[in-house]
Amino acid sequence: MKEKNKTTSVFALGGLGEVGKNMYIIKTDDEIIVLDAGVMFPQNDLLGVDYVIQDVSYLKENESKIVGLFITHGHEDHIGGIPFLLGSVEIPKIFTSKIAADLIQKKLVDRDIKYENVEVFDENSHFKFKTMEVEFIRTSHSIPDSYAIAIHTPAGIIVETGDFKFDLTPIGPMSDIHKMARLGEQGVKLLMSESTNALSEGFSKSESCVDESISAIFSRYTANRLIVATFASNIYRIKHIVETCREHGRKIVTFGRSMESAKEIAIKNNLITDKTIFVEPNEAKNIKKNEICILCTGSQGEALAALSRIAAGTHKQITLMPDDIVVFSSNPIPGNAVGINRIINKLYLKGVKVVTNSEITDIHTSGHAKQEELKLMLRLMKPEYVMPIHGEYRMLKEHKKLAMACDVKEENIFILKNGESLDLTKHEVKQGKTYQAGDIYVDGSRIGDVGSVVLKDRKLMSKDGILVAILNIDTNKKELLLHPNVTTRGFILVNENANLILSISKRIESTVKKYFASNAKYNYLDLKNQIILDLNPYIVELTGRRPIILPVIMEIK
Amino acid sequence: MKEKNKTTSVFALGGLGEVGKNMYIIKTDDEIIVLDAGVMFPQNDLLGVDYVIQDVSYLKENESKIVGLFITHGHEDHIGGIPFLLGSVEIPKIFTSKIAADLIQKKLVDRDIKYENVEVFDENSHFKFKTMEVEFIRTSHSIPDSYAIAIHTPAGIIVETGDFKFDLTPIGPMSDIHKMARLGEQGVKLLMSESTNALSEGFSKSESCVDESISAIFSRYTANRLIVATFASNIYRIKHIVETCREHGRKIVTFGRSMESAKEIAIKNNLITDKTIFVEPNEAKNIKKNEICILCTGSQGEALAALSRIAAGTHKQITLMPDDIVVFSSNPIPGNAVGINRIINKLYLKGVKVVTNSEITDIHTSGHAKQEELKLMLRLMKPEYVMPIHGEYRMLKEHKKLAMACDVKEENIFILKNGESLDLTKHEVKQGKTYQAGDIYVDGSRIGDVGSVVLKDRKLMSKDGILVAILNIDTNKKELLLHPNVTTRGFILVNENANLILSISKRIESTVKKYFASNAKYNYLDLKNQIILDLNPYIVELTGRRPIILPVIMEIK
Repeated sequence: MKEKNKTTSVFALGGLGEVGKNMYIIKTDDEIIVLDAGVMFPQNDLLGVDYVIQDVSYLKENESKIVGLFITHGHEDHIGGIPFLLGSVEIPKIFTSKIAADLIQKKLVDRDIKYENVEVFDENSHFKFKTMEVEFIRTSHSIPDSYAIAIHTPAGIIVETGDFKFDLTPIGPMSDIHKMARLGEQGVKLLMSESTNALSEGFSKSESCVDESISAIFSRYTANRLIVATFASNIYRIKHIVETCREHGRKIVTFGRSMESAKEIAIKNNLITDKTIFVEPNEAKNIKKNEICILCTGSQGEALAALSRIAAGTHKQITLMPDDIVVFSSNPIPGNAVGINRIINKLYLKGVKVVTNSEITDIHTSGHAKQEELKLMLRLMKPEYVMPIHGEYRMLKEHKKLAMACDVKEENIFILKNGESLDLTKHEVKQGKTYQAGDIYVDGSRIGDVGSVVLKDRKLMSKDGILVAILNIDTNKKELLLHPNVTTRGFILVNENANLILSISKRIESTVKKYFASNAKYNYLDLKNQIILDLNPYIVELTGRRPIILPVIMEIK
Repeated sequence: MKEKNKTTSVFALGGLGEVGKNMYIIKTDDEIIVLDAGVMFPQNDLLGVDYVIQDVSYLKENESKIVGLFITHGHEDHIGGIPFLLGSVEIPKIFTSKIAADLIQKKLVDRDIKYENVEVFDENSHFKFKTMEVEFIRTSHSIPDSYAIAIHTPAGIIVETGDFKFDLTPIGPMSDIHKMARLGEQGVKLLMSESTNALSEGFSKSESCVDESISAIFSRYTANRLIVATFASNIYRIKHIVETCREHGRKIVTFGRSMESAKEIAIKNNLITDKTIFVEPNEAKNIKKNEICILCTGSQGEALAALSRIAAGTHKQITLMPDDIVVFSSNPIPGNAVGINRIINKLYLKGVKVVTNSEITDIHTSGHAKQEELKLMLRLMKPEYVMPIHGEYRMLKEHKKLAMACDVKEENIFILKNGESLDLTKHEVKQGKTYQAGDIYVDGSRIGDVGSVVLKDRKLMSKDGILVAILNIDTNKKELLLHPNVTTRGFILVNENANLILSISKRIESTVKKYFASNAKYNYLDLKNQIILDLNPYIVELTGRRPIILPVIMEIK
């Protein structure tokens, strides 16, 4: 007879073979722990803002066993999926560190989601459930309050590192290397360690080096207006820029919604104490150029971010001056280089000086562990088994090599796909069943923000094209507000097939009506799946083709 | 009344403000622990081989309190002074790791010194004395069996790191980072950490990278004879070269005395198991060029080493061929670049291809911790007080900055000179008295090896020059074999001052006679000091000048 709760299973609903939409599941027979709920931003050059999230069917089906969602840190690829998850699965409690809690709170308020069960943990917290216990290890990363999570399971200790680096001279508190060493001596069964920088040799630079370089730029360009673009979530960086502005007698004006939020959260958490340094855009106009610093989003070349509009000359409040200095306190995330270069070219055309990160000027450092740091984590934890997570396959594979070099047996290292699981008992670890996992495409924008809807899966599209069905739904009244709008690319020509398009639209309309008639509670994901399931055979029958079907639901409350 | 053994004092007799002649003293009222006894090689371009050692007057005067000499690892700057120390001070026991023990043994045998009290320690050893206890922490360095030493004193735990790096994928065993973390959590009062690479950013490359590059060179130059020059003490490197030769079907011939010793020690300690791969020089001649590898000393451009003679065409057994490949598996130690370049130029002149360490080819890595590694040691140990050791002042100063960045209070970091001490109690640490310390110049060669005697202290010499007195002494009969030979540079012209030179020689002769008449036991250092003390006022009286007086004693047994 199978002994209950003897086996602990581990799998990812997102985060393997990709950078983004992290979600890892640790489960016994009775309990499920969910680690992180992130979104992924499609890397293609999209108009409008779109997310990719996890298929959480498994969690929906096993809702009653979930003990909580644990958040490692407040980056979008770890918390961005929370509103969607809460919309479809009952989560009894979210356990999160402080800064992440504030960011989650803001996200929920923005989307009008009421959820009260948020518990803030710190390095001393310890939660005991029926079959598992959870504790936290402070790490360094490019956002404050980042943690690795240790789960004591019936099969042994599982550690999920979250995103980390070893910054030995951090701006915030030190990584708790002693707790890591203690866990290593206790015996770690499975280490799930992030792989973002597994392809990079060496040891990442400390955030302290960045601070020095930023200070040097302020000391050098004392006569110019400074425009600094950086990641809003890197609150320690922002804190340092604020302090540097104070030393140099500059006021600060912030542009970009996420930068505004970061500012508020930094002030709320006493990371920034002097509020008076911030001025409103209308005040900023009257301040001398060498007494102001513009702090903005858009360091990744995002088309709609503040910097992009400043560079294009379409920003309402800021017009570039030829002697402005624009500082990119960032590195291009792979895939964004084209967008960033476009902005830099525009800036140069206006005669502006652009300062970017380089060998000489350390104005950015990665928040992710490079090879020597990944090895240090492996050495501290001394795990019996390793599962590289958080990365594309080539990163996971390189991480496997590092683990082997650190004396983990090759057969004890598992490179899995989303959904593939490991079954752990006290005495063995082997691959288990495969759970349902996949990509769900979401138009994450609120009504009014959508310029155009573009969702691309070019590889599949190159075969039979795509069909986008846009539904405006009143979620209170549970009805369609307009006939579904159907548009296609690479499937059929809309103009020449008006009747076909009309019949597809009608088919969708009837599916929606049936759905509302038979479901008491409206669920976004369910409806979406229903439309795809209904429409797919219908279109195959009519055309013999299998376009990607993308229902986009615009919810009006 | 002063409480006995309440205060622990720490000072260096060598190693501060210099790279070499390491010797650190940890003492209570009743007991003295000596850490290392190294030599320093003068950096100037010298003919003949000369050492600089510590002035050990303090130890001589407090001989009865010494509990032992503890050796961190087997490099010359940590063990090279042992024969001199044993010659002048009674050392009850030498505690040392295995490889260092073998190297020390060889040194003592070579010099005909009988000393039986050598105890080999390992990571599990623990020695308890009346007031202090000693344990050992395995580290990584460019010689096997390197250790940090933790001394539990009445004032708290003192850790002396020895030379170390954090090689997370070492060829030998891993540094014991968990023991370091445990000590850190117990509470380290004072960390004495090495500073050799304190000026270098980043994290040093692993020895594993070097292994890969060396293998690549062997795979590339399959048709050529390979001549590899490296440090004889880097036994793991030699082990890898041997293994690579076996894979590529090459026999090995070694040149250089220290390389011979390294080979013997590696075989004795089972680091190299296949003895048959080594051939004698006369056999090597009959082996095809692509089936032989010459492994030799001289990677630092040492004038008398094997490689230097090969390059100059003066080596008895090896004549260069134009398609030879010479590999420098080493980095120039500062000060040696000129000598190395001279050899490389000679090699190029003979048409030989030279492969050196570079950005592209990792055929050497440092054995010393770079900044991130020094920070990691500081973070693991969390010391209350720090004393940077083992380095020139600019290195010690940079190390101080690193310690401050790692949250050690500035006032708790002590940059001392040789002889300057720290007094530690449970409740405070402050600077104490200054003990006698200084440089002693030694001609370390045995009779017959001396080509010419050169001992230079250019700075002082630029004032009043130098006077070298060479004494041939029969230590059994306790008498001078010849009249003392007096030669000078920058003091007076010998040819024009024959009478003056003669009277100085006679004065020395009488000093020696008086010494032997009044001392039952001959002591090299005592005699040397006696000569300096007698001669100095005599020369000042005769000439008004104060040349450096350097008695060189050639002992004939």
